[in-house]
Amino acid sequence: MRKIAILGIGQTKIDEHWDKSLREIGGDAAFAALQDAGVEKVDALFVGNMLSSMVSGQNQLGTFFADWIGLWKREAVKIEAACGSGAAAFRSALMAVASGDVESALVLGVEKMTDKAGRDVTAALATAADADYEVEQGISFVGINALVMRRYMYEFGWKHEDFAQFSINSHANAMHNPYARLHEKITVEKFEKSSMVATPINLLDASPVGDGAAAMVIVPAEKVQRKQKIVVAASASATDSIAVHSRKDPMFLQAAYQSAKRAYEMAGVTQNQIDFFELHDAFSIMAALSLEACGFAERGQGVKLALENQIGIGGKIPVCTRGGLKARGHPVGATGMYQLVEVVQQLRGECGKTQVHDAKIGMAQNIGGSGATILTHILKKEN
Amino acid sequence: MRKIAILGIGQTKIDEHWDKSLREIGGDAAFAALQDAGVEKVDALFVGNMLSSMVSGQNQLGTFFADWIGLWKREAVKIEAACGSGAAAFRSALMAVASGDVESALVLGVEKMTDKAGRDVTAALATAADADYEVEQGISFVGINALVMRRYMYEFGWKHEDFAQFSINSHANAMHNPYARLHEKITVEKFEKSSMVATPINLLDASPVGDGAAAMVIVPAEKVQRKQKIVVAASASATDSIAVHSRKDPMFLQAAYQSAKRAYEMAGVTQNQIDFFELHDAFSIMAALSLEACGFAERGQGVKLALENQIGIGGKIPVCTRGGLKARGHPVGATGMYQLVEVVQQLRGECGKTQVHDAKIGMAQNIGGSGATILTHILKKEN
Repeated sequence: MRKIAILGIGQTKIDEHWDKSLREIGGDAAFAALQDAGVEKVDALFVGNMLSSMVSGQNQLGTFFADWIGLWKREAVKIEAACGSGAAAFRSALMAVASGDVESALVLGVEKMTDKAGRDVTAALATAADADYEVEQGISFVGINALVMRRYMYEFGWKHEDFAQFSINSHANAMHNPYARLHEKITVEKFEKSSMVATPINLLDASPVGDGAAAMVIVPAEKVQRKQKIVVAASASATDSIAVHSRKDPMFLQAAYQSAKRAYEMAGVTQNQIDFFELHDAFSIMAALSLEACGFAERGQGVKLALENQIGIGGKIPVCTRGGLKARGHPVGATGMYQLVEVVQQLRGECGKTQVHDAKIGMAQNIGGSGATILTHILKKEN
Repeated sequence: MRKIAILGIGQTKIDEHWDKSLREIGGDAAFAALQDAGVEKVDALFVGNMLSSMVSGQNQLGTFFADWIGLWKREAVKIEAACGSGAAAFRSALMAVASGDVESALVLGVEKMTDKAGRDVTAALATAADADYEVEQGISFVGINALVMRRYMYEFGWKHEDFAQFSINSHANAMHNPYARLHEKITVEKFEKSSMVATPINLLDASPVGDGAAAMVIVPAEKVQRKQKIVVAASASATDSIAVHSRKDPMFLQAAYQSAKRAYEMAGVTQNQIDFFELHDAFSIMAALSLEACGFAERGQGVKLALENQIGIGGKIPVCTRGGLKARGHPVGATGMYQLVEVVQQLRGECGKTQVHDAKIGMAQNIGGSGATILTHILKKEN
């Protein structure tokens, strides 16, 4: 596949933006990315979004944002893969530029979640699960993840507090990310005392919703004049059954394994060469499962990596270096683009107190549903 | 761009399928296409759909169908561009195969609309319009098209009955299409006496909703061994403002003009070489505007082409040869794929009484919103 470079990035702070519309939030990130790239126009726009039809009564977000941003007449489209929509839009844009049919693209992940009551958003998020076989039984999306976490604890003998370090790490890193939703250090005690959501998942196991957008401009690498470039070394996507009960082993993220395996092959690296990993910690259990599926820990031992603090900056595999979904926030359809923007920030060396030393190769993994759609991207700094 | 061939097609009859779920309808078309192509698996699945989150409580349709169809582990994604979702999914798949990153793809346009009450579907369809500037004022999607039609009649001096031939032609052609929703010949008298929906648009100006799915398998053309191939000669997409009031001229489909212009250039043809045109007659006014924007008629004279019956089989430019949206039916996110499947049927010479004589080059145009996202594809028979 033709080599693609990241020309510019942009993002908004994740928050309850009651004073800003869907249009304005997406526009802010898009304009920031275009400005960072030093371009005014691109050939095509790819928007990742999950909820806008249900929360804002707005579909056709590709054209909606092309209109607002001023990409008049240009082609535009929306891509949806539940919480994996952001990275799915990025991958579609990559393939479009790689095809040669477009020479530049803007990718925008955007989500406005706080304009509806919590129960409406919970119902909207449940559309990521299987409507016929899961949601019909009355289970929520958190509930599905709670069942997986409970089974994992039982099978591998972990206690709830053993998961604390995932959230502590994300919260600590988010302290230094001005775009993060939560700026609050937490401790094991606080983690254990947090309100229960769906046992054993409590409030500090779960990522917060929010309004936010993150964007990127991509072009063929050969068109970038600068010596130092951030390029896409690998892009891979894989799926698993929508319903968790259909999986042979509900505690193994088959699609994470498949997409990471393919990504390592494409990039010509092993997991040991990955300098940091922006993983999809929608719930602390998902952080453990991602680390295991991608080869950073043995089965059932992802938690150990956190307990030994190998996931912090300077650890064996730093994760969620800008706060992850847990503390940066999880505006669902935008999350995959936040992760990729953060990988670029690390590779550019712009992360201050959470900068990974000499970061050259970064990985991002975005998950749609309870492990149903998983996209893995590896970006690389080239000098 | 790498040349792509159509290896197989499949479709379901459009109807109120109360005995079939979203899963089953999409699966039926997908399996038919795989069987027609003579393959069991493809590398990737692209699903075009607009309403499933709102009507069926199901998002993440890419993975949902990969799961159901048995494309285990393969990548899958959903593309949405309102009523243009079908052709948008096709274009995304084309670019993916053209990029070389996937070697075969299944494209599935699917929509299940009749599981909700009419007013809920009307509200869901309104998400194609501008939520802030159009829908907020209380206008429906039909209402927006009605304003355009009224203005067109005023500006160019046409009477309502002058539009009859568009619907008469579509209904006549649908008589010979077993997959069509409506099998009923109509006359000018019937057209004029039909119930009003949003003046001047009456029931026979408007396409019916329905449940349906259409699918295709695509591969690089060089991989097809047969002598006769159907190949993609051109694929183009363009956008206009979402809100009709923002357009300099609301009676000119700028995005149709742009995407058709680009498609003619890519295919190396003029509109005179197009043997038939599967256009997006969601409302009769849209048929007229499409013909004008694509160069088949002068401004304001699309209606004349119909009045002179130049749009029938054997006419100057046969349109809606399988019944169009008006009579084949308009399951919104599936429509673009129905059009493309029908183009292939014509090029293969499988259309019986509505077969266009010696059809070699066919065009399909799919519209999202009131002309906001427009995709034009040209397919060609190669010997």
